[in-house]
Amino acid sequence: MTVQTIKSRAAVAWGPGEPLKIEEVDVMPPQAGEVLIRIVASGVCHTDAFTLSGDDPEGIFPAILGHEGGGIVEQVGEGVTGLVPGDHVIPLYTPECGECKFCLSGKTNLCQKIRVTQGQGLMPDGTTRFSINGQPIYHYMGCSTFSEYTVLPEISLAKVNKAAPLEEVCLLGCGVTTGMGAVLNTAKVKAGDTVAIFGLGGIGLSAVIGAAMARASRIIAIDINESKFELAKKLGATECVNPKNYDKPIQEVIVELTDGGVDFSFECIGNVDVMRSALECCHKGWGESVIIGVAGAGQEISTRPFQLVTGRVWRGTAFGGVKGRSELPGIVEQYLAGDIPLQEFITHTLPLDEINDAFDLMHEGKSIRSVIHF
Amino acid sequence: MTVQTIKSRAAVAWGPGEPLKIEEVDVMPPQAGEVLIRIVASGVCHTDAFTLSGDDPEGIFPAILGHEGGGIVEQVGEGVTGLVPGDHVIPLYTPECGECKFCLSGKTNLCQKIRVTQGQGLMPDGTTRFSINGQPIYHYMGCSTFSEYTVLPEISLAKVNKAAPLEEVCLLGCGVTTGMGAVLNTAKVKAGDTVAIFGLGGIGLSAVIGAAMARASRIIAIDINESKFELAKKLGATECVNPKNYDKPIQEVIVELTDGGVDFSFECIGNVDVMRSALECCHKGWGESVIIGVAGAGQEISTRPFQLVTGRVWRGTAFGGVKGRSELPGIVEQYLAGDIPLQEFITHTLPLDEINDAFDLMHEGKSIRSVIHF
Repeated sequence: MTVQTIKSRAAVAWGPGEPLKIEEVDVMPPQAGEVLIRIVASGVCHTDAFTLSGDDPEGIFPAILGHEGGGIVEQVGEGVTGLVPGDHVIPLYTPECGECKFCLSGKTNLCQKIRVTQGQGLMPDGTTRFSINGQPIYHYMGCSTFSEYTVLPEISLAKVNKAAPLEEVCLLGCGVTTGMGAVLNTAKVKAGDTVAIFGLGGIGLSAVIGAAMARASRIIAIDINESKFELAKKLGATECVNPKNYDKPIQEVIVELTDGGVDFSFECIGNVDVMRSALECCHKGWGESVIIGVAGAGQEISTRPFQLVTGRVWRGTAFGGVKGRSELPGIVEQYLAGDIPLQEFITHTLPLDEINDAFDLMHEGKSIRSVIHF
Repeated sequence: MTVQTIKSRAAVAWGPGEPLKIEEVDVMPPQAGEVLIRIVASGVCHTDAFTLSGDDPEGIFPAILGHEGGGIVEQVGEGVTGLVPGDHVIPLYTPECGECKFCLSGKTNLCQKIRVTQGQGLMPDGTTRFSINGQPIYHYMGCSTFSEYTVLPEISLAKVNKAAPLEEVCLLGCGVTTGMGAVLNTAKVKAGDTVAIFGLGGIGLSAVIGAAMARASRIIAIDINESKFELAKKLGATECVNPKNYDKPIQEVIVELTDGGVDFSFECIGNVDVMRSALECCHKGWGESVIIGVAGAGQEISTRPFQLVTGRVWRGTAFGGVKGRSELPGIVEQYLAGDIPLQEFITHTLPLDEINDAFDLMHEGKSIRSVIHF
């Protein structure tokens, strides 16, 4: 086993608000329990942009962002038993150790095994594998997929079918799994249920797919950008609503459209006012609202408690409630069976050199997902 | 069938903030689908006090308050098929028509059949059965149990076993069923779960009973009035906590006590700040908080959405999720089997003439429940 540091091309975030800069970084070999991955492709997600903007209070710089990747195992560290070089993997920002209180609970996918160090931009041993001229570069969400080579703990890697093109299934590493999982795992939408989906970015459109898979009777897709409506309908939305076309709160519009409210709603933006609308458009007695979007630092949700006392339920989800190592391989199989049209999400493919363009396209609302090909 | 108006002694709420006044009121005979009840006993609940105070924006005066009663059918109106004179009944402020969208959903107990008129203090035909010298007196929560005789729709009456003393099972008409039901029906607490209960009034103590029936492993009872702790422990609380004994937020205290938070929490006060504490003391990944208390007009609950995204669930309950006509008779049987120590709740019994003393005892924190004997 080599202990040699290798060189990798990577997009480095040097500071909040600055464009990413393509650098040659040094990547240390994987330590015990760790795996060196060659990234083949990586989606660019709003969460990367959120951290890069500086609004993320937990953002750490300099760092290598990216958390929606697909790669191939290059080298494994001591004690790694579940992966060998050549395996195809999807990095997981929510690991699955199988041993912690959370993994053993059977109630959540929020493995806490390496939460503290991951939040600090470090590997579980408290150090980083990236550096430039000896200056440490931090990891991001435990993934750092905007690098040709990256190192992850074995517990943060889902081994998937090699038949699946990594340029597409990389999207299952975050957005698509999150949106679909919120509908299918967290809310457990059933055939005939009515659904409202707020925000038609990658997450919201994936929630539309999930609702269509669940055979929801009405899938109401809501966005102020009507250019999203065509794809939403193609993916299964039965109605599209632009809140700007009404002079009353959107929750009232949805309640009227649905004779009392929807069975389930999903907030896919990260806007606390929309989170309230999403809750309040749910049906009295049983409607459930799921928060998927990530709000800005310090922001709070509010409502009258009467909304809950009269039977509505407010919950949230992270990574769609999916346990990465045990469940993501099956979702890749669903993709291979033709059930998940990932190609519809990929509006742009770019080389690493043009990664800043991917952020621009996102901010301009022109892309669903840009995928970086290494 | 007589159509004669009868005389009844009743405690009338003439206006917000005024003491109740004992009056002789005229009670019209039951109309189609209605039932005349002779009230034997009635608990005095915080909700009665809330409305009497004037803080309830939906409070209507003059009215006959009271909604936690037990009575005997005196006379039935045309078309009433399920009750005959002599039947023992518990009035239901949440009716069960069995026909509306809500009753048919199988998902909620919030029957909406007569919601609008009930909220207006009227019978389903839009009129009142009470008057004094021709001046209409309004109904309250569809019950008005602070009257020797009252009239209710048949769908608002649960027929119960005559073996059960109405002086005790009247408490199943609100508080005790609400607290127990929140734990057993709404939260579905299971053996071994950990529970925190905020507020040890009638509702909170009933939640303690529910948690003990569910065989929760830890039942943490929380109140700033330590005189409630002895009874809480007798009913099954494993620990009692006074937030005033700590210099940090109570949610942090509970999280530390329980290695990460409780599986379920219950807010039994109606304080929006406590509602937030109750949510935030739940365990990451799966903890669920149930709002039982009724907050003041216009008040709102708030939290960071991160609390929900990391797996906590916020819900509420009304009348413990219990469907009155189909489920309350079974709860009375549980009482008769010795499972529900209602006698522990009755700290005071008073004649109707002294009903204002019952409100004073409640405000002074000296009573769990005062029961009026007619």
